[in-house]
Amino acid sequence: MDFVVIGGDAAGMSAASRAKRNRPDLNVTVLEKTGDVSYSACGMPYNIAEPDMDIEDLVVRHAQVFRDKQGINLLTGHCAEELSPGDKTVSGRTSEGKVFHLSYDKLLIATGASPVMPDIPGTELPGVIPLKTLDDGRKIKAFIKDRRVRRVVLIGMGYIALEMCEALRAMDIQADMVKSRPTFLPWMNADMAEVIREELESNGVVLHPGHALERIEASDDGLKLICPDLTLDADMILPAMGVTPNSELAANAGIITGIGNSIAVDTGLRTSDENVFAAGDCADAVHVVTGEKTWIPLALRANRGGWAVADNVCGKDVRVHGTVGTAVFKVFDLQVARAGLNAAEATKAGFDPAEVMIRSRSRAHAHPGASKIWVQMVGDKKTGCLLGVQMLGKEGVAHRINAAAVALHARMTVEQFSQSDMAYAPPFGPVWDPLLTAANQLLKKI
Amino acid sequence: MDFVVIGGDAAGMSAASRAKRNRPDLNVTVLEKTGDVSYSACGMPYNIAEPDMDIEDLVVRHAQVFRDKQGINLLTGHCAEELSPGDKTVSGRTSEGKVFHLSYDKLLIATGASPVMPDIPGTELPGVIPLKTLDDGRKIKAFIKDRRVRRVVLIGMGYIALEMCEALRAMDIQADMVKSRPTFLPWMNADMAEVIREELESNGVVLHPGHALERIEASDDGLKLICPDLTLDADMILPAMGVTPNSELAANAGIITGIGNSIAVDTGLRTSDENVFAAGDCADAVHVVTGEKTWIPLALRANRGGWAVADNVCGKDVRVHGTVGTAVFKVFDLQVARAGLNAAEATKAGFDPAEVMIRSRSRAHAHPGASKIWVQMVGDKKTGCLLGVQMLGKEGVAHRINAAAVALHARMTVEQFSQSDMAYAPPFGPVWDPLLTAANQLLKKI
Repeated sequence: MDFVVIGGDAAGMSAASRAKRNRPDLNVTVLEKTGDVSYSACGMPYNIAEPDMDIEDLVVRHAQVFRDKQGINLLTGHCAEELSPGDKTVSGRTSEGKVFHLSYDKLLIATGASPVMPDIPGTELPGVIPLKTLDDGRKIKAFIKDRRVRRVVLIGMGYIALEMCEALRAMDIQADMVKSRPTFLPWMNADMAEVIREELESNGVVLHPGHALERIEASDDGLKLICPDLTLDADMILPAMGVTPNSELAANAGIITGIGNSIAVDTGLRTSDENVFAAGDCADAVHVVTGEKTWIPLALRANRGGWAVADNVCGKDVRVHGTVGTAVFKVFDLQVARAGLNAAEATKAGFDPAEVMIRSRSRAHAHPGASKIWVQMVGDKKTGCLLGVQMLGKEGVAHRINAAAVALHARMTVEQFSQSDMAYAPPFGPVWDPLLTAANQLLKKI
Repeated sequence: MDFVVIGGDAAGMSAASRAKRNRPDLNVTVLEKTGDVSYSACGMPYNIAEPDMDIEDLVVRHAQVFRDKQGINLLTGHCAEELSPGDKTVSGRTSEGKVFHLSYDKLLIATGASPVMPDIPGTELPGVIPLKTLDDGRKIKAFIKDRRVRRVVLIGMGYIALEMCEALRAMDIQADMVKSRPTFLPWMNADMAEVIREELESNGVVLHPGHALERIEASDDGLKLICPDLTLDADMILPAMGVTPNSELAANAGIITGIGNSIAVDTGLRTSDENVFAAGDCADAVHVVTGEKTWIPLALRANRGGWAVADNVCGKDVRVHGTVGTAVFKVFDLQVARAGLNAAEATKAGFDPAEVMIRSRSRAHAHPGASKIWVQMVGDKKTGCLLGVQMLGKEGVAHRINAAAVALHARMTVEQFSQSDMAYAPPFGPVWDPLLTAANQLLKKI
């Protein structure tokens, strides 16, 4: 049986490896348009921050290992361009321009997502580089070094932009962030977003929300980002406005796409074509809290989806559970985490949300070294169910959020969650864990 | 209505405060035999470690505040000695020897637990001091300072003993630990216990398991702990062999006691007498995983129980959910945590356990500063349910355990837990959270 995988990143290589492990007799071919497979994309900002580290350190497993040790027919530099579900073939072109055709019995589309580029003139200029692929990281790292970059403008204020700010400031590079929408982190509790803004500003990042982008121009000594009421000089401009799923190949082949143009899959990662699976950042998922389809491109889901596809290709019937949108990121000394819905999302999904925001401490009463922890929690007045949590603090946030994530998976009520037996020792938190304090307060409102 | 509380620590003061908040017209009297109420007992080792900190810093709220601001009739130096459920009275004696009698409509027994003392001659000698009450902490701190203590022997190797070791070593005091049972941390996975043992030894703690205790003697320059095959010299000896519930008062009044001699309560914290509640370290609880009664004296449960009693005294019908035995402690640079059952406990409770132990990392591939994380996980082959987790590592353990605790509360299967959407960012863990890696491995065995 021929199992063909389009895309050699998290979902694709997880699927290929596991399929070959499950059934060594399987012919597994991976088509990857770049030269890179299996690398830690999320590690790029941290690698870029360290001039002494090599970007190649992020490669988890080299292409040759997949070929030699795992028996995977891994074809790098192979861009899939057309899919014919009728005769079960994929065709495309290599980086040398050679056309190829491949037939499959089962296909996985794991084409990932691409950075959203601002729709303004000048994005093709040298020094305008988004951060998505390892090659982007390579280019950014080289550009910073070769051009002695001192000023960077970041377009967008999402996770990647915030992580890149920290990397740039670590190299003492000036960082300006600009975006057209007026609200900084609109999905976040406003008081908590303000704490993050202060953290950025105290680390020398300059924020410019609410500026429509007009164009990028080359200047005498670099680039200019021009807005109607603002001009920012830069040596490099990083568009970091989020990503969009690479679903054209599937859509052009008549495969159904859905939310945010992602490829619609069932819980077995099957698309509308019985022989075609999709997984990773190009595919949608079910949100456990809303029960509706969602598109949240994150690494864990890509890996998990790849495994499930491999098992299903090999004749099992593995189902992935939904997502609750758990995410964490670091902004200088702050840990920022979320899981589930905020109040606006909850209202939109048909809930009747109540919310609280509490401040607690990262260590016990009188324990030295404590810092503040903020928790925002949302519950449903109709059912009493926990709907979402946001957290913020210098310590004890990144892993605490998982307790809320598990509670969301279990569809716990706020009351049930408030009764959880959580760990206590003075160096690690107060007797009432900040999550429990938030739940206790929220209970009074629902 | 007269609500009388025996014991002014976590459960007692939580109940008294909340009852008065619920119903300001209530007459709330607290009988506390010592002079201290409302302090962070768990913070004592950390306070003792810092000669510059005052032990009184651990007081969360002073007795006078409870009296003046909250209107609680708080009687310190009042030791309850006899309970007559028939005529609803408590009698006792003050620290000045004055007899008192009090009648109640509703009573809460929150007498806590007492340290287990070794049953050997010499425990009454000066310098043999257990660590339980704030006054014990005061004595230990003063003794260390006044006698210029350089050598301490700890009897027992449980949480408190381990925390005290770290405190003593921070003051460059020699620490020897001795216990009669041969196995260090018998409840823990043996490989993981060995990591803790190495951490202790590399910090200069000397362990002597498997030595029967014979007697303590005064010596020319301090004390001697004598075992048949070992004699340890010390300036101070700390018995830290665990605690036993203070249930005599209840038992003598005919109130039913159960597991480990703790007072038997229902989920509303009611004892076998309809007007008497019990909460905190003197009371039992239901273990969520086994469904059986258990006795696990920990601070969060005491506070939660106190609140529930207050609500029930005021006419509500609040039920506390069970415990899953979540605990965390710090041993020098290690965080050690557990929730639920180990394999032996699971077998004893009638499960058919499978277990795995995995090693993972605290940060992502190629992220600097990563350290090892160990996870041991137990599941039931019959039902597929998650039964317990133990974790160990230098970072990322203390709060991760709560995700397992919530899963145990929700009675999740290992498969469901393995599908949890956990947070990922390179500074905080690998893509597959160590808990998920353990769950994935355990799934292969059940």
